[in-house]
Amino acid sequence: MADSPAHGEIDLAVSTVIFALRPGRDGGAPTLWIPLVRRIRDPYVGRWALPGGRLQAAESLAEASRRHLKDTIDLEPKYLEQLYAFGDPERSPGDRVVSIVYWALVHAEQADRVTEGENVRWFMADELPELAFDHNVIVDYALWRLRNKVEYSRIAHALLGETFTLSQLRGVHEAILRKPLDPANFRRQIEATGALVATTAVVTGGRHRPPRLYRYNDAIDMADNGPLGPRAT
Amino acid sequence: MADSPAHGEIDLAVSTVIFALRPGRDGGAPTLWIPLVRRIRDPYVGRWALPGGRLQAAESLAEASRRHLKDTIDLEPKYLEQLYAFGDPERSPGDRVVSIVYWALVHAEQADRVTEGENVRWFMADELPELAFDHNVIVDYALWRLRNKVEYSRIAHALLGETFTLSQLRGVHEAILRKPLDPANFRRQIEATGALVATTAVVTGGRHRPPRLYRYNDAIDMADNGPLGPRAT
Repeated sequence: MADSPAHGEIDLAVSTVIFALRPGRDGGAPTLWIPLVRRIRDPYVGRWALPGGRLQAAESLAEASRRHLKDTIDLEPKYLEQLYAFGDPERSPGDRVVSIVYWALVHAEQADRVTEGENVRWFMADELPELAFDHNVIVDYALWRLRNKVEYSRIAHALLGETFTLSQLRGVHEAILRKPLDPANFRRQIEATGALVATTAVVTGGRHRPPRLYRYNDAIDMADNGPLGPRAT
Repeated sequence: MADSPAHGEIDLAVSTVIFALRPGRDGGAPTLWIPLVRRIRDPYVGRWALPGGRLQAAESLAEASRRHLKDTIDLEPKYLEQLYAFGDPERSPGDRVVSIVYWALVHAEQADRVTEGENVRWFMADELPELAFDHNVIVDYALWRLRNKVEYSRIAHALLGETFTLSQLRGVHEAILRKPLDPANFRRQIEATGALVATTAVVTGGRHRPPRLYRYNDAIDMADNGPLGPRAT
């Protein structure tokens, strides 16, 4: 009855959607990009897919996500959160595979350090090719969650460096929401949350009124898992 | 690499946390209750646990949740949503079991139809005994998510009947948040969301100003899964 599972009939994978904010094509406005890996075996050999793979017996779900990211694209994200478990019976041809999907947010500098090659490449999140399995659906769902979540939480920070200007933070919100935001309203709303701390530093470069740099209050976790705490990621 | 899982080493279960709003002990203010089933085999024989069990090869995750609820406590919830996948390597003694957990909200009338017995019983969500596996952690997490979510979504409706007074709706919010809410502020906030529709009916019973009955706008899904749509539940 309760918690007595089928043994060996259903396979379990862990995959991860990674978002970074990078300049658009031809140096355009910043937009969301995700790295994909090319499959080197069937099913879907040659197709692009989310990095991921098997869960090992001794590791947690989040540890499996981190291990696959390290092994396939050498990324160690600070922000990692469980997204959703995808278990449609038809999602993997020939096998029954349930994929537990995580999502990660990384800074542009981290993203720049990923070495692209024949089997690893960054794609604009809104312009993906046809991916392996149901991975297009998974990315659509991750984008939807990201766009909802940025409105009531402070995850945009995970896409920026340690310090940033209010204008840079607004740029992140604009890229995620795909719409311009009024600078004065944005400043008021962000300041009302109390989550930002003004540093004593400003952006250098000889401007008359150089913009101030802010950081987030480190006392607040970026990925808020409530009673699960940091152990969940 | 991507999506190639371990075969047969890790077991997969689906369990469900069901919330209903029922009178507190000795007829007190409404509070959250959950039904549990007593385990009839090891591990944790005799302990109370969330209803659940194995995922069958041909069913989706949500179908497995619904099947276990029907079989163990004869409940068919309208509101069912995926909560989280729990995969700590130590969460089940002797085996590696990953549990994908759903949560359901049911009306008091539905809850009243569950037949309690030696192996099925309702418990107040804040006063649970020590449960099997990590099920206390799972319920704590579900309560935390419910308390967060009621503030920015309209799931409280799932705990009420088709029509309800504003006072009844406020009672649901108060029970979930465990704090009194100002009636006038609550009315303003709820009306501002535009999700409520006033019916032409009022509560009968001969009062001078009988309260009006409301219903939710059916065009909006209670469990909003975005691009996954209703297929996710």
